[in-house]
Amino acid sequence: MNRIELKSLLADSALGTPAGRIVRTLSARGSMSAAQLARHTGLAKSTISTTLSELRRTNMVVETGIELDGGVGRPATTLTLNPEAGTCIGILIGQSEIQVIVADVSHRVLSDQTVQLEPDYSPEHATDLVRGLIAEAYSQQWRSQDGLLGVGIAVGGPVNPVTSRVMRGGVPKWTGVSLHEHFAPMFEAPILADNESNCSAIAEMTWGAAQGHEDFIVYTLDMGVGGAIVSGGNVLRGVAGAAGEFGHVVIDPHGPLCRCGNRGCLEVYASFRTALVEAETELGRRLHITDVVRLAMSGDETCRRLIRQAGEAGGRGLGLIGSVFNPSLVVVSGRLATAGDLLMQPLIESFERFSLVKREDVPPSAQTRVVPSAFTDNGACMGAVGLVLRNHGQALSLAH
Amino acid sequence: MNRIELKSLLADSALGTPAGRIVRTLSARGSMSAAQLARHTGLAKSTISTTLSELRRTNMVVETGIELDGGVGRPATTLTLNPEAGTCIGILIGQSEIQVIVADVSHRVLSDQTVQLEPDYSPEHATDLVRGLIAEAYSQQWRSQDGLLGVGIAVGGPVNPVTSRVMRGGVPKWTGVSLHEHFAPMFEAPILADNESNCSAIAEMTWGAAQGHEDFIVYTLDMGVGGAIVSGGNVLRGVAGAAGEFGHVVIDPHGPLCRCGNRGCLEVYASFRTALVEAETELGRRLHITDVVRLAMSGDETCRRLIRQAGEAGGRGLGLIGSVFNPSLVVVSGRLATAGDLLMQPLIESFERFSLVKREDVPPSAQTRVVPSAFTDNGACMGAVGLVLRNHGQALSLAH
Repeated sequence: MNRIELKSLLADSALGTPAGRIVRTLSARGSMSAAQLARHTGLAKSTISTTLSELRRTNMVVETGIELDGGVGRPATTLTLNPEAGTCIGILIGQSEIQVIVADVSHRVLSDQTVQLEPDYSPEHATDLVRGLIAEAYSQQWRSQDGLLGVGIAVGGPVNPVTSRVMRGGVPKWTGVSLHEHFAPMFEAPILADNESNCSAIAEMTWGAAQGHEDFIVYTLDMGVGGAIVSGGNVLRGVAGAAGEFGHVVIDPHGPLCRCGNRGCLEVYASFRTALVEAETELGRRLHITDVVRLAMSGDETCRRLIRQAGEAGGRGLGLIGSVFNPSLVVVSGRLATAGDLLMQPLIESFERFSLVKREDVPPSAQTRVVPSAFTDNGACMGAVGLVLRNHGQALSLAH
Repeated sequence: MNRIELKSLLADSALGTPAGRIVRTLSARGSMSAAQLARHTGLAKSTISTTLSELRRTNMVVETGIELDGGVGRPATTLTLNPEAGTCIGILIGQSEIQVIVADVSHRVLSDQTVQLEPDYSPEHATDLVRGLIAEAYSQQWRSQDGLLGVGIAVGGPVNPVTSRVMRGGVPKWTGVSLHEHFAPMFEAPILADNESNCSAIAEMTWGAAQGHEDFIVYTLDMGVGGAIVSGGNVLRGVAGAAGEFGHVVIDPHGPLCRCGNRGCLEVYASFRTALVEAETELGRRLHITDVVRLAMSGDETCRRLIRQAGEAGGRGLGLIGSVFNPSLVVVSGRLATAGDLLMQPLIESFERFSLVKREDVPPSAQTRVVPSAFTDNGACMGAVGLVLRNHGQALSLAH
């Protein structure tokens, strides 16, 4: 086994071969049993068996353990790509933070570091930080970057899918920066970029609350309101990269001005921006969303009320989005979702009220499930890692 | 060639064979050149050539003419399935009409008949009518129904995708009727059913304004407001069959009651229902939407104003939907769309105003195109024919 072989097995040209399909599936999904691989790739069990023998002989695929496969209680060996076969880097360029995760191709996280910054930090400063964090992560693991498969970048704002250029309305100082051009000199590996919400969707379907789902909605409630649309296992990007920008549907044309320039956007009502100011005023000190959630969970009435109101407003927006898609699953993401039932209960009640299809009118199989995210942040940086694991070798098709 | 062979070539099991892929593509798309078939199926030109020779030898595929293939000006022979290989029936169960179209598998319409009815017509009455219209269509063409490939049914309202049962909120007397059970005794062929808007989407991508597009939105402005979402060439149906019900997104929670039971739905503002009453009052006589469109186009100021207002309200709703999807293409359907620029101009202006991504901020390739439908009605009955042509042999996957 060598790394060049892994890259060639992940290339589009290898998709027609059983080995290519198995390797791509393991890269996207992490660990799987032979039976699960057969179901997922559609290959015959005999083909799976022969190909896995060869992939194990060359050490491309390794055993990771035994797990119960489904409900029948028969234990099965689970397999992953060899952790030594390659690494991926995920970078989050957030409103006031930089996060860097290094993981290997067996989906094991090797390093996860976050640095808080002032909101107007410069791309140059961020780049220096990222370079340092990555060097540190690899040296601590005694690994070289030779096996780097790709770099995924999650950005707190819209990204043009063709040019990878950061668009207006996201992280202030990054507007107009081409992520490919900016980061290319640093890495000898493909760079894939998408907005934070789309990356969160990849994290949810790979490791989170949407595992096994090919069609679902991510709905993010935080200082902004956003989301993502997943259809047939693909995150929809939109003709200008703005699909899933749920925060900017206009609720009231005569409402307050939104930071996007329109009036009365959903975000004006359902983001936690003004609620946070109210909490700070009432409690007399500076607070983060996470503080408000913690205080609410320990019984603070002001914080509980503010989260309930955010749930009600968020549910109205979700009702609107639900009526458009009638989705089978909605994953509620963002830091507000960590409040659990304090948020979810008013949100689901309000969602139900503003939905076209009422829960009581349809059988359980036709009801929309609304569940909180599996991540305590929004998982976007893990999603940036997933962007590489799922799309390596398909970089060109992503860019168009 | 015989008909059993056509059905077997359209079955899922034949999808792995070059002949199966070519026949399915021709069934879905109508006529194509060999070069187009190669691009579309991904098969090698040599495979296309060998397989087409065999399909032409058995008379399954026939030449239909010569056309210019693309911009290079080189003429190419176009091919279709043999018109004698089979027929399809499309049935529209509308609010106050029944329409029946019979077409052959080369996409030629053999018969197209519409009967106007009172809105509370019974399913039994409709069934008798449908039976008569179909018998007449076949006898006029000197054809038997032996080669009937399938029956597509478009319904003016939501249909449960699993049970094919007509849901609340559509054609009054049909609520609760299972279309499979109701029509199965009449035909010895599979029955496929979907709502009117989803069928319109199939018509637009097969014969209309969305030809060649795999991702687009249909937005219907008529006595109701509706639409459809097409992603990756598939019409999204939603967990309860209610995807694309754009008319029932709640615009104002304190607004007037909607027929769906919620308040302030988009349909209350953007459908032509109340506008039609206003037109009738001002002009002192009973009118259909088509009358109002005709009067507006010949200069009547009242009718022009009412269509302009419908465009403005419709554009606001479309802005909302556009912000959710950021689609590359929107096809505006329904009888209001036949008013052309009288509707489209205020609609596009209002869409632009309520959209997150402004036209001036992005290059032309990243702009959303909003175009009127190619059909003077909404094309739903043709779409029901397309439902069969595109999905024959996949009936089971459609039903789940």
